[in-house]
Amino acid sequence: MTVDDERVSRVRFGADGLAPAIIQQFDTGEVLMLGWMDAEALRRTLTSGRVTFWSRSRQEYWRKGDTSGHRQYVKGARLDCDGDTVLIAVDQVGVACHTGTRTCFDADDLDPAVGRR
Amino acid sequence: MTVDDERVSRVRFGADGLAPAIIQQFDTGEVLMLGWMDAEALRRTLTSGRVTFWSRSRQEYWRKGDTSGHRQYVKGARLDCDGDTVLIAVDQVGVACHTGTRTCFDADDLDPAVGRR
Repeated sequence: MTVDDERVSRVRFGADGLAPAIIQQFDTGEVLMLGWMDAEALRRTLTSGRVTFWSRSRQEYWRKGDTSGHRQYVKGARLDCDGDTVLIAVDQVGVACHTGTRTCFDADDLDPAVGRR
Repeated sequence: MTVDDERVSRVRFGADGLAPAIIQQFDTGEVLMLGWMDAEALRRTLTSGRVTFWSRSRQEYWRKGDTSGHRQYVKGARLDCDGDTVLIAVDQVGVACHTGTRTCFDADDLDPAVGRR
């Protein structure tokens, strides 16, 4: 699909046509989740005020919250220096994770060795 | 390469052997950058106190800051609910971006339509 949006055309999507989208709560700075967007999902996200992903497992567009009610309202969007990753600031309704936790990173601590300056 | 680390074995790396790693400043919550890690890069990151990526462009390990001095000291690490994305909390020395900005998301505003609840 051709997406006629200059902002979307700046993004370097991967070989699979997707780019990672980091979703961050706009006021607290919490990283809520990472999803994947193709050009059309990003266009919808930038133009509609609601975050839409491409679901790799279901192979379909997925507007966050349509089933769960846990909508993500767009507050900002930035492209990184390489043009291949987007950072979306959102206002998350309820919880971001389908497991019921606030973020998708709440449950599994990798317990790293801590570095010091 | 076999990586003998139970924490690393929990990660579902992609078909290319890589997983995205979101790098976040531990105290301010700034999202600094997104990099890619294979199992060995993640093992080094979890065990050494310093962030190591796999550079897709150079096809080599890349311990952040070895050339630039802009080291990332590990403060925490979490795996997401799908097991395919890691979130690393760091203390960033200087700037995260090779362009000289604090984060890799500082320069390019995608200027989205803002959504409201």
